Amino acid sequence: MDFYVLCDAATHLKMYPVFDVIHYTMMCINVKEDIQKSAAFPFSRHHPLALWFSSMLMCFASQIWLCLLFNTPLASLLNNPHSILIATAVWYAINYTPADIVYRLLSFKLFKLIISLMKEVHRVYGIHAGVLLAYKKFPTQYLLQVVAGLLKGSSYVWMKPFERFVRGYWAPNSNELLQPSFVAKASTVISLLFVLRSAEVIQVEHSVLFSCSMAVLVYLRLSMILLSTKDPFLPFENLICSVIFGGMWDALRRARTEPVNGVVATDTKVKKS
Amino acid sequence: MDFYVLCDAATHLKMYPVFDVIHYTMMCINVKEDIQKSAAFPFSRHHPLALWFSSMLMCFASQIWLCLLFNTPLASLLNNPHSILIATAVWYAINYTPADIVYRLLSFKLFKLIISLMKEVHRVYGIHAGVLLAYKKFPTQYLLQVVAGLLKGSSYVWMKPFERFVRGYWAPNSNELLQPSFVAKASTVISLLFVLRSAEVIQVEHSVLFSCSMAVLVYLRLSMILLSTKDPFLPFENLICSVIFGGMWDALRRARTEPVNGVVATDTKVKKS
Amino acid sequence: MDFYVLCDAATHLKMYPVFDVIHYTMMCINVKEDIQKSAAFPFSRHHPLALWFSSMLMCFASQIWLCLLFNTPLASLLNNPHSILIATAVWYAINYTPADIVYRLLSFKLFKLIISLMKEVHRVYGIHAGVLLAYKKFPTQYLLQVVAGLLKGSSYVWMKPFERFVRGYWAPNSNELLQPSFVAKASTVISLLFVLRSAEVIQVEHSVLFSCSMAVLVYLRLSMILLSTKDPFLPFENLICSVIFGGMWDALRRARTEPVNGVVATDTKVKKS
Repeated sequence: MDFYVLCDAATHLKMYPVFDVIHYTMMCINVKEDIQKSAAFPFSRHHPLALWFSSMLMCFASQIWLCLLFNTPLASLLNNPHSILIATAVWYAINYTPADIVYRLLSFKLFKLIISLMKEVHRVYGIHAGVLLAYKKFPTQYLLQVVAGLLKGSSYVWMKPFERFVRGYWAPNSNELLQPSFVAKASTVISLLFVLRSAEVIQVEHSVLFSCSMAVLVYLRLSMILLSTKDPFLPFENLICSVIFGGMWDALRRARTEPVNGVVATDTKVKKS
Repeated sequence: MDFYVLCDAATHLKMYPVFDVIHYTMMCINVKEDIQKSAAFPFSRHHPLALWFSSMLMCFASQIWLCLLFNTPLASLLNNPHSILIATAVWYAINYTPADIVYRLLSFKLFKLIISLMKEVHRVYGIHAGVLLAYKKFPTQYLLQVVAGLLKGSSYVWMKPFERFVRGYWAPNSNELLQPSFVAKASTVISLLFVLRSAEVIQVEHSVLFSCSMAVLVYLRLSMILLSTKDPFLPFENLICSVIFGGMWDALRRARTEPVNGVVATDTKVKKS
Repeated sequence: MDFYVLCDAATHLKMYPVFDVIHYTMMCINVKEDIQKSAAFPFSRHHPLALWFSSMLMCFASQIWLCLLFNTPLASLLNNPHSILIATAVWYAINYTPADIVYRLLSFKLFKLIISLMKEVHRVYGIHAGVLLAYKKFPTQYLLQVVAGLLKGSSYVWMKPFERFVRGYWAPNSNELLQPSFVAKASTVISLLFVLRSAEVIQVEHSVLFSCSMAVLVYLRLSMILLSTKDPFLPFENLICSVIFGGMWDALRRARTEPVNGVVATDTKVKKS
């Protein structure tokens, strides 16, 4: 099979039934596991309404953020009762099946892996849709296009504080801007690549860029789950922080003001004697 | 007097001066009593501005929510200085009259009853206005119409966390979605009935449905105040929770895993003896 | 030089490069100093992204509030990458220069004074722009015009809770409505004057009103920094509070219920003897 044909095929997957359900599944599991971390009592039994609303907030986070960004009425979110119904069904299956059977099944490593990888495919489609939407409205606003792609790709991590607020759990000292996750960083990079290609800075065919970024994302997620490698952006971040965000200067100052350990030790010894 | 004529009369009450004032009164009292619960010092003396703003948030909550839902500029809220003036006058009367005379008068059971019942009439008008507004904009979006009616009817209970935030009181672990109040549930049901009628699922005349739901709401409120009956939705809720939200399965599991009390008692007795 | 020519000149200053940079500088310093108050560890080293975002929130607060008020898409904030770049450069210079040299320079009383005074000039231009914008859209909505001017002039004080939230610092019991600052009060008064003039209640030339309010604001700020005078609105506020917000009645009640000190002393003496 030709490489280009493969790439082209990768850009024409249908998101609607399967990948969307995967997305909803992952979001509902996300909320459920966040509850298990934060609350001891059976939240799903006592507050089904709050649980439903917070799961929906996570499922439709990307639509909500784009509504706010482009000033579409929030009413338009309710114009698609079909997808709300599907998301509700997924939410019900994950939280209320007897003996928690659906959730336990999905917790098997194999299923977890499949869901995570399909979610990465869904993510690339989301980022592309976001960039395209912004491009159609404002063709020359590159910054806006990057932000739209970023919000589509990692919408749910930005929704987290509000979703938690709905569940009555308020954790102001942890948000995505304080500790950006892998998802947010990867979305930013891929979104940037798409925008650079559409601005003709990068000369590469769309389908190649699309399927390559999909492949890289799937590969990274695979290695993160199977080999539990850490966030691959960390080394770059540390480099950037130490070079441009003052790390170097701080080190220099410490080197000048604080004496080296060994020397201090000698000094104190001398004083003692 | 004919039943239909009565029903028709009930659908043509004028909200503007009297019922709106009643609504503002109830909202200001609501804020004042929430302060008395949460803060000990004389809040109204130290922070008139915050008190005013939070009272206004409650008075115009339904307009604010509909602005957000249908993306009307928030600026349009300020286009009606007349109603802001009236609400301000009410706020002033309730909080700053000498010897708190207005508030004390309104605290008499009789006045409280009248205000509460008139507020229920106002609520039904609000729900109908919300459903109608959504119907005019999106005639086939039934879900949206229900939400609009719900937000109009019980707007202030959803505004509570933000109103409290303005007053410097942040209670993240209590919100309407965690413990839905009677007001929210009743608004949902009535809003749903209006939408079902406009979708021609329920075949009943508008004025009959309108005045009946008004009568039921007034009756329920009356019995809640005079006989202090509890939320009439509770039995249904408990039923739903136990049937579809896992209560039954949990009970079954407990029945299987935990031995029955009596048996345990005998067992331990046997062991002791 | 003629007085009117001077006034006219004062209304035609160019805000774009210099005053805007001053505004950004002051906002970044504001955030930096708020961090120094609230957090002990080197926040700028650990969370550059959150710091950048919160500084930008403060720099572009007035645009954000007007977007929300007039329902312009938030996307339009990103349409001006030029000013975001400048603000980012200012942010970088204040937080990450070696040995904190830029911030230390700007902390000298002289520079602080210059920045503060230029910011007051910038403020008057902002208020005027806000009032004008609202006037063009809704010529007869005076209340809205005052609010728009107020939000443009003191935008950043209203953004403070959200900026703090981004930095993971949540202080719900201090907001601008609970303790209005000098900035908010002065913006309200000037905004009101502009609106009264455009409504032809005050018969004075625009350039005169403009430059006079600028002069007064600069003078007040000067005396606040050099002579550390307190908020000049305080006496009026105390008067208003005691006359119309219940202070007088409370005093009367206390006078009636609590006996005067001297008398009590005598009484108790009598009883003792």
